[in-house]
Amino acid sequence: MHSSKLSGFFTSNIQASTEEIEALLENCTRMELKRNQFVLREGEHCAHTFFVEQGLLRQFSIDTKGKEHVLSFAPEYWFVSDRESAYFKQASRYFIQALEDTVVLLIDEAFIDQMVKKFPDFSGFNTRLLHNHIRHLQNRINMLLGASAEERYLEFVAMYPDILLRVPQAMVASYLGITPESLSRVRKDLATRNFKGR
Amino acid sequence: MHSSKLSGFFTSNIQASTEEIEALLENCTRMELKRNQFVLREGEHCAHTFFVEQGLLRQFSIDTKGKEHVLSFAPEYWFVSDRESAYFKQASRYFIQALEDTVVLLIDEAFIDQMVKKFPDFSGFNTRLLHNHIRHLQNRINMLLGASAEERYLEFVAMYPDILLRVPQAMVASYLGITPESLSRVRKDLATRNFKGR
Repeated sequence: MHSSKLSGFFTSNIQASTEEIEALLENCTRMELKRNQFVLREGEHCAHTFFVEQGLLRQFSIDTKGKEHVLSFAPEYWFVSDRESAYFKQASRYFIQALEDTVVLLIDEAFIDQMVKKFPDFSGFNTRLLHNHIRHLQNRINMLLGASAEERYLEFVAMYPDILLRVPQAMVASYLGITPESLSRVRKDLATRNFKGR
Repeated sequence: MHSSKLSGFFTSNIQASTEEIEALLENCTRMELKRNQFVLREGEHCAHTFFVEQGLLRQFSIDTKGKEHVLSFAPEYWFVSDRESAYFKQASRYFIQALEDTVVLLIDEAFIDQMVKKFPDFSGFNTRLLHNHIRHLQNRINMLLGASAEERYLEFVAMYPDILLRVPQAMVASYLGITPESLSRVRKDLATRNFKGR
C-alpha cells in the first residue's frame, strides 16, 4: 500500500511515524467504489468507519414517505460511519453511497485497539475526535432548530468548501433541511450581494 | 456528602465501590439551584458537565431574532454540558437553566482524569457514553430532517417519559422543532386514538 492520506492524518496528530501507521493499515481493507455504489444499506450492520482517501460519500436516510434526507457528506480526509450500528451492533437506519468514483479505507475496532495499544496518545486523540463530532452534531441541531436558510447555507460552505460543485443542489438542500427552491433563492441573494463562496 | 445518584450510576457500570466513587466526588462541587436560575449563559465558558441529582435543567439557544430553541432537557440521572465550550475552550452559544429547584454535581476534567487513573474500565465506559451521545444526536438530526410531528413527539415520550408534565408545552414544541399548535394537534390526535403516554 502506498502512503495514504489516513497515515498523514494520524502522523500530524499523534506521535507516530508513517511507517508504523502504514504497517497497521496493511490490515485494513481498501475499497474502490464506482459512482452510486453503496457501502451500507438500511437494515444492514455497519461494521466499519469509512475513511475517504479519494472521492465523495454521502450518508442518508429514507423516511416513511420515501423521501431522502442527507445526514452528511464525506469528501477526502473525512470519516463516515453509522456509530449507532457500528458501536451498538444495531441494524442501521442509514445508507452510505459513493457520489463519485471513490477510494475508502475500512477502519474497524481491531485497528482502533491496535492504535490504542501502540501509541499512548492515540486514545486521547480519539476522544478528541468524538468530542469534535459531538460539537458538530450539536451545532447542526441548533441550526436546524433556529437558523435561517441563508445561515445554514453559509455554515455549509464553511464546513464543506470544496464540494459545492460536486454535489447536486437537491442533496445540498436536503442536508440543509430546506427546499431546493429556497436554496436557489439564497444563492441568488448572496450572488447579488457579491458573495464569493459559490 | 450522602451517597449520590451519580455514584450509583458509576457503580452499576464500572468495577468500583460506592466508597471509592464517593471519595472522588468529595472534590466535586454540589450546587443547589433555584427554579429559573442559570448555570451557563451564552458567551461564557462552560467549565463543567452538570449531573442532575434532583430537578430538571434545559439547554437552549436564542437565535438572531430572539427566539429560544431547546437543545435538550436533563432530568435526574442525566448529564448536560456544552462540550464545544468545555472541551474546546470556546465561548458557549448556549444557556443552561433550571426549570425546577435543582441539585447538580459539577464534573470537571480533573474528576474524569482521576476516574481514568483509578478505574481501568472507566475509559471504555466514557467512550461508550460519548458514542451514545453521538447516536442520540444523529438520530435527532434525522428526525428533524425527515420525521413527522407525531413521530418526533412519540420519540420524545420514549426518551423523556417522566418529564411531560414538568415542562411547558411551548418548550416541548421548541425541542421538537414544531409549533405549539402542531404539538396540540398531535396530542389531541393521539388522545382520540387512545394513546396512553400522555
